[in-house]
Amino acid sequence: MSIAESGEFGLIGRIVARLGDASSALLGPGDDAAVVAAPDGRVVASTDVLVEGRHFRRDWCSAADVGHRAAGANLADIAAMGAAPTALLVALSAPTDLEVSWAEDLAGGLAEEAALVGASVVGGDVSAGPTLTIAVTALGDLRGRAPVVRTGAQPGDVLALAGRTGWAAAGYAILSRGFRTPKVFVEAYRRPLVPYEAGTAAAAAGATAMIDVSDGLLQDVGHIAEDSVVGIDIRKDTFEIHAQMRDAAGALGVDPYLWMLAGGDDHALAATFPPDTALPPGFTVIGSVHEGTGVTVDRMAWQGGTGWDHFR
Amino acid sequence: MSIAESGEFGLIGRIVARLGDASSALLGPGDDAAVVAAPDGRVVASTDVLVEGRHFRRDWCSAADVGHRAAGANLADIAAMGAAPTALLVALSAPTDLEVSWAEDLAGGLAEEAALVGASVVGGDVSAGPTLTIAVTALGDLRGRAPVVRTGAQPGDVLALAGRTGWAAAGYAILSRGFRTPKVFVEAYRRPLVPYEAGTAAAAAGATAMIDVSDGLLQDVGHIAEDSVVGIDIRKDTFEIHAQMRDAAGALGVDPYLWMLAGGDDHALAATFPPDTALPPGFTVIGSVHEGTGVTVDRMAWQGGTGWDHFR
Repeated sequence: MSIAESGEFGLIGRIVARLGDASSALLGPGDDAAVVAAPDGRVVASTDVLVEGRHFRRDWCSAADVGHRAAGANLADIAAMGAAPTALLVALSAPTDLEVSWAEDLAGGLAEEAALVGASVVGGDVSAGPTLTIAVTALGDLRGRAPVVRTGAQPGDVLALAGRTGWAAAGYAILSRGFRTPKVFVEAYRRPLVPYEAGTAAAAAGATAMIDVSDGLLQDVGHIAEDSVVGIDIRKDTFEIHAQMRDAAGALGVDPYLWMLAGGDDHALAATFPPDTALPPGFTVIGSVHEGTGVTVDRMAWQGGTGWDHFR
Repeated sequence: MSIAESGEFGLIGRIVARLGDASSALLGPGDDAAVVAAPDGRVVASTDVLVEGRHFRRDWCSAADVGHRAAGANLADIAAMGAAPTALLVALSAPTDLEVSWAEDLAGGLAEEAALVGASVVGGDVSAGPTLTIAVTALGDLRGRAPVVRTGAQPGDVLALAGRTGWAAAGYAILSRGFRTPKVFVEAYRRPLVPYEAGTAAAAAGATAMIDVSDGLLQDVGHIAEDSVVGIDIRKDTFEIHAQMRDAAGALGVDPYLWMLAGGDDHALAATFPPDTALPPGFTVIGSVHEGTGVTVDRMAWQGGTGWDHFR
């Protein structure tokens, strides 16, 4: 059955049925708006849009995968502020011949990813449109702490990373060449493993700046450097090259550091901490902050590619 | 200059420059997420997506008009909960050949409409995509009151309306026939006049149910009837037919009641109140709630068309 055949309200009913428990909401789907607890007296909010053919392909990812990716990208932004995600809202625009089951599975994926952090999908909108487009807004709670912004890095701070980089880029490269294995990278691309807990842990440990690594480590750390008016140096020897990644990179003729330093979509969290900080679990030091500008790798300008421009 | 030429970060910079004062935000655009005050300890949130060719046409509306419409549709949902809007987030997907000035003017329209209620655009996302699509999320604050939901209408309540209905539908009909006048209706379609203050006023006055009339009065009041498990009767004689609307309807061979009872996009607010309520300014009684089901007009089934299905 297509979404045109189900009609707007039939489709909404089927989607809501797949959202599962919305216990994080004081008022869930079904009214003009949802009501979500904001116990801190402030709410953190971020929105991201995924467009078919640009951010995902239906022949590369299942609907549930796309749900996980869309939710993960947004929940990671909340985590990168040091906040705990509470809720998602989803605006879906889809061709009228889209199968209802695809929309249902998308909703299932969104709800499953949100449930990983105790959040839920509390509202949304659906519309017909020629291009399958999914805009997600995530909300979160700061639990009484200041948000961890991009402007606070100080010379002398360490740069630390939670989560992995290069895995989704490897998966993307593999899929782009028409392969489906190694599955470990393809799966990393389809459903990023976001280190959500590291976000609030970093805030509690006194992180001075933090960012979600969505466009590539060099580019995203570059935002911290620019906004904090500091230089940041990344040390290559702090990155362990997984044996499978070395093999995959070799097979595709790619420098694995390109994936790890410039590949996006893993949604790792990069944060700076004062030098004497006991880093929270999951974080590894990968560099340092100094007076100056820009991001270097082993004190030199990176000659490989950098990150992602959504209009390139 | 196209948005491809400006690049992602160039475009974001130009958009943010047009957003004006973001004083409603504790932290505005430029980080992973925004931070918005939620003094009530709860946040009201709603999202709506507008797709070119379905919700707007660039030859019918300026970019600023589309901004006003997109913001208005979302802010009206917040008002319909009895909440005061605080912030908007905007996800824009656009063809790479879109003029940067169009995106800038869209941002200006969004910001201007938000400013009407003291809110601002606090965050967003931009992406290339083949179809111009604008997803807006609005946030609001309940100011210590319970949300006004759709389930609370009681037999004996009055049904009251704030704002106008049929004006945007008349404008749409006029534009559809290739005309550009009467300007009063075309303008109503381009920039709905949303009775924002009526939302919080209705909540303070004890409204038992409320809804944003976006898809047509009969359809939207039908949601209150269904969710509250009541019948609702609307009295035609409570609607004054404006002389210009009578003329326009006559010229186009349309029953003006069709516009007023089934036309969407004006974003009036329909609310039910206990019978002895002193109605807040702006509300007029247009019907009553009784035991039963469904919506009738003068106690009879409406034979004209009903509202809008986003997949029809």
